[in-house]
Amino acid sequence: MKPTHIEHLGIAVSSLEQTIPFFEFLTGSKCYSIEEVADQKVKTAFFKVGETKIELLEPTCPESTIAKFIEKNGGRGGVHHVAFNVENVEEALKEAEAAGIQLIDKAPRKGAENLMIGFLHPKSTCGVLMELCEQPK
Amino acid sequence: MKPTHIEHLGIAVSSLEQTIPFFEFLTGSKCYSIEEVADQKVKTAFFKVGETKIELLEPTCPESTIAKFIEKNGGRGGVHHVAFNVENVEEALKEAEAAGIQLIDKAPRKGAENLMIGFLHPKSTCGVLMELCEQPK
Repeated sequence: MKPTHIEHLGIAVSSLEQTIPFFEFLTGSKCYSIEEVADQKVKTAFFKVGETKIELLEPTCPESTIAKFIEKNGGRGGVHHVAFNVENVEEALKEAEAAGIQLIDKAPRKGAENLMIGFLHPKSTCGVLMELCEQPK
Repeated sequence: MKPTHIEHLGIAVSSLEQTIPFFEFLTGSKCYSIEEVADQKVKTAFFKVGETKIELLEPTCPESTIAKFIEKNGGRGGVHHVAFNVENVEEALKEAEAAGIQLIDKAPRKGAENLMIGFLHPKSTCGVLMELCEQPK
């Protein structure tokens, strides 16, 4: 695999409203997009730092995996996942599987910002949930 | 504050030896440096992905904050901190303090790879430990 860069960091937060001002200060940039991803039960907010985005993830219901992540983390937010940009996510998933890495997504699916995405299982990735992303053509 | 890019992600692992092969596969690059940072009680291994480095952190003794992080995380590794590159870390720490952000380091100190660094307290940064870094001149 040869990712070009870290596409984004997914950071779980309890409230976008309460945390956006801090991330605007930290990144020195305005939040440029707020988007709800219904099937993941999250509302997201995006910032840019160099070639990487910061994606804040607020759970929209208690059943959201982000709500469970925050609960497990003692009520605090934290880095939920790290996403790597690849040229072809389908090929990258196949390559990962062939290397013995457990996949969450066997095939690419559509994520936030129209990216094609696939997740690797943290059991195979040193405890860190990792996503592979491909930019829309 | 206006960081230029994400300088590195610090990822806690129990063993560099066991995890370096995975990160070499993931990043498509060789680990380019292994360094012990005695005062932080860690051994580090570095990889590059675009403009960002991945810094694996292995505790060198049970009293290491990294050992405690892994223990608290149910024995698993995870993203320990996110580091932002700034032009002047001393000024950035002052700016953060003036904005009401709690600091771990009131003044810059030397970190791995000869960077000048300072940490912000996760209480003020949405639960994510954050580092500011300045490249050596």
